[in-house]
Amino acid sequence: MTVVSVEQALAGKIPAGGEVTVRGWVRTRRDSKAGLSFVNVSDGSCFAPIQVVAPAELPNYESEVKRLTAGCAVIATGTLVASQGQGQAFEIQASSLEVVGWVEDPETYPIQPKAHSLEFLREVAHLRPRTNLFGAVTRIRDCLAKAAHRYFHENGFYWISTPIVTTSDAEGAGQMFRVSTLDMANLPRDDKGGIDFSRDFFGKETFLTVSGQLNVEAYALSLSKVYTFGPTFRAENSNTTRHLAEFWMIEPEIAFADLAEDARVAEEFLKYMFRAVLAERADDMAFIAERVQKDAITRLESFVNAPFERIEYTDAIKLLQKADKKFDFPVEWGLDLQTEHERWLTEEHVGRPVVVTNYPEHIKAFYMRLNDDGKTVAAMDVLAPGIGEIIGGSQREERLDMLDARMAQFGLDPAHYGWYRDFRRYGTVPHAGFGLGFERLVVYVCGLSNIRDAIPYPRAPGSAEY
Amino acid sequence: MTVVSVEQALAGKIPAGGEVTVRGWVRTRRDSKAGLSFVNVSDGSCFAPIQVVAPAELPNYESEVKRLTAGCAVIATGTLVASQGQGQAFEIQASSLEVVGWVEDPETYPIQPKAHSLEFLREVAHLRPRTNLFGAVTRIRDCLAKAAHRYFHENGFYWISTPIVTTSDAEGAGQMFRVSTLDMANLPRDDKGGIDFSRDFFGKETFLTVSGQLNVEAYALSLSKVYTFGPTFRAENSNTTRHLAEFWMIEPEIAFADLAEDARVAEEFLKYMFRAVLAERADDMAFIAERVQKDAITRLESFVNAPFERIEYTDAIKLLQKADKKFDFPVEWGLDLQTEHERWLTEEHVGRPVVVTNYPEHIKAFYMRLNDDGKTVAAMDVLAPGIGEIIGGSQREERLDMLDARMAQFGLDPAHYGWYRDFRRYGTVPHAGFGLGFERLVVYVCGLSNIRDAIPYPRAPGSAEY
Repeated sequence: MTVVSVEQALAGKIPAGGEVTVRGWVRTRRDSKAGLSFVNVSDGSCFAPIQVVAPAELPNYESEVKRLTAGCAVIATGTLVASQGQGQAFEIQASSLEVVGWVEDPETYPIQPKAHSLEFLREVAHLRPRTNLFGAVTRIRDCLAKAAHRYFHENGFYWISTPIVTTSDAEGAGQMFRVSTLDMANLPRDDKGGIDFSRDFFGKETFLTVSGQLNVEAYALSLSKVYTFGPTFRAENSNTTRHLAEFWMIEPEIAFADLAEDARVAEEFLKYMFRAVLAERADDMAFIAERVQKDAITRLESFVNAPFERIEYTDAIKLLQKADKKFDFPVEWGLDLQTEHERWLTEEHVGRPVVVTNYPEHIKAFYMRLNDDGKTVAAMDVLAPGIGEIIGGSQREERLDMLDARMAQFGLDPAHYGWYRDFRRYGTVPHAGFGLGFERLVVYVCGLSNIRDAIPYPRAPGSAEY
Repeated sequence: MTVVSVEQALAGKIPAGGEVTVRGWVRTRRDSKAGLSFVNVSDGSCFAPIQVVAPAELPNYESEVKRLTAGCAVIATGTLVASQGQGQAFEIQASSLEVVGWVEDPETYPIQPKAHSLEFLREVAHLRPRTNLFGAVTRIRDCLAKAAHRYFHENGFYWISTPIVTTSDAEGAGQMFRVSTLDMANLPRDDKGGIDFSRDFFGKETFLTVSGQLNVEAYALSLSKVYTFGPTFRAENSNTTRHLAEFWMIEPEIAFADLAEDARVAEEFLKYMFRAVLAERADDMAFIAERVQKDAITRLESFVNAPFERIEYTDAIKLLQKADKKFDFPVEWGLDLQTEHERWLTEEHVGRPVVVTNYPEHIKAFYMRLNDDGKTVAAMDVLAPGIGEIIGGSQREERLDMLDARMAQFGLDPAHYGWYRDFRRYGTVPHAGFGLGFERLVVYVCGLSNIRDAIPYPRAPGSAEY
């Protein structure tokens, strides 16, 4: 008896005619008038279940096999044969079908073999990976994550885990979550009646990180090519379909790179991940294209096959002003681009992904490098049809005097950025990087409309996310 | 001009005689009486710097090259040639040596080319990756992480990111950090004068996760083989050299697996990662063996080449009682093994890694599967010479009635574990998994004695960890 995964059995990697054992959960059972049953068994190793043909001769045929319902756990042993039926290349002619785990009260089992609303499935997040959709989403998410690590490995980037609990606010932008072990019912006070954070766990006030970028920059100025891949947190906007309070970010940072190199890496990186999904998860993507988003595969193919366009922000404004389209938000040099503008640019004007560069300095973060025109910074946003902004990045201000001027302009206290200023005093070099919200990528690839469906545990159980 | 990494230039991947450009930071400069300078340049892509031979004919030789000090950023262009000197295969005969970033006040630059104390380097965490030691630690850490993902990829495991902010305490064990956006100076109160967490960000009291295990179990009962790799948090013991408040954990979970299979995977996984380090980071490991831990390489080689021993807890107690050794802590069936016992077993008695199995049920967690003897649970600890416990795992209690009995015994409220009980009602199967503290692995491989040196940012900057 050789235990194999359903994926191995269906992929033709096992010689037909051999004896195999598969283990998994029943999807459907169909009893034939010929006195046998077809039991589809899934183990999550790939999209398709395998058909187990159970003859009436099995000793437990009447007592157990004919009572099998969706969700029951079984171990099937038999001969792997080319299937006569439609829809699968191989099936198992069972010589044994052991029931390991029954479904208590099949009538009320939440994951019936029928369509469920996504709202309902979020309430049973611990069971929803048993559905076709969330099995596929989970495998695609895994494929994207592993492809990301592999891209960086093949291109000489080292993974850096930047601090999750932090004392600093990376951008002076996001609302932060406080992390504390102080007894809230009995808070220690300082002389002035304020909270005495010196008695908190870390001896100071601490928060969850909003970005690892500032930390990873210092590593780029030692190891040249680095990246983060870890959770980040924003205590805002959590009630939309586009924002999560807790999400994973990928943030590469490259020494000796300018904005053009940053955009080149962003394009190469996105295409690498999408090629991996097309090649490695063709089964799941076929389901997504059939049931969720008709052009899910073709739009990824277009994405990887065409070069990204590059447009300067200033030119984008001119294009938008000349566009034969009425926008809700004003279009004017100095104002940020709104989603409607971004979508028009990438979907209607260019028709493929576009990198918009060199934004007005006053609408972008303090750490972005001031261009020679004194009016713009070396920032970029990568926009793509069907999703809008997918990557934001910039060349960083490596010149300490310029950085200090930008911090003064933004009202930031240099004393809070001592170490961030410090590595610019010692062999500073041009460097650039970008950030990619991992769940937005999953949402896009899987054709989902609510970002809560791109994380394994939306809401409870076990998660605070809702 | 072809830009190459120092690793590419030194590895013989570039044809000698060709024109190349390398970019990095000066480690040392030595001026020869023959009127030229040897400048060692590191870009962090590998352990070794590359020697750049700068002739006096360079236009900036007197004005700049002869002023170069450790930490200056340079771009060197020239011919890659086989080196006449000792210690390197290739060097660059420079036709240009551009200085990109000077070191402000070289006298006070913290990373001088000399030995520094680890205590001192923790205070300049943003600069310490420029040292030989922390460059090596960073690359080895990356290698271990990528090998972990690769092992799981090759063996059909899917990555699951379990919730970081959580409402539940995975083991009823660890002290937890509270996560909140409530205004601590002005806390909302409920009817009874308690804190009104319904007005907190998530509408309830929330904490940082101590383990993703319970969440990932549900995914194993859908996708068969899964794992987490993410940060976990414990608000305790942070002031030792062996504990971190924030650390990364790897937690695989396998459906249809018993304890023997769990131990088999643990052994295979550890050996896979160590083989990767030996093969891919030979340069860094040679430095570790030379300067940090003499047997760093040989002990990894022993580790991967010998089968792990298996010993039942009950037999381990007998062995310890018969041992010709005085222990500080008592040895008696029913008591947990202390570090001194574990080290004697693996280092003195067996002399290689050992898996201790089947511990008394009352000293292990509620979710571990009760053995048929009614006295022990199917738990395991993997112990290894030089580190002690490196992995803890168990077969999980998949029988709902037994789980309920265990929860009652531990005084846990089943209502708090609704979803965790729930997936055992629907096709429950034997399953097993283990947890591996990632930083402990880094500490072991790198021969470090303080776990703070295994994370990129101990203490400030940017980190609350100290």
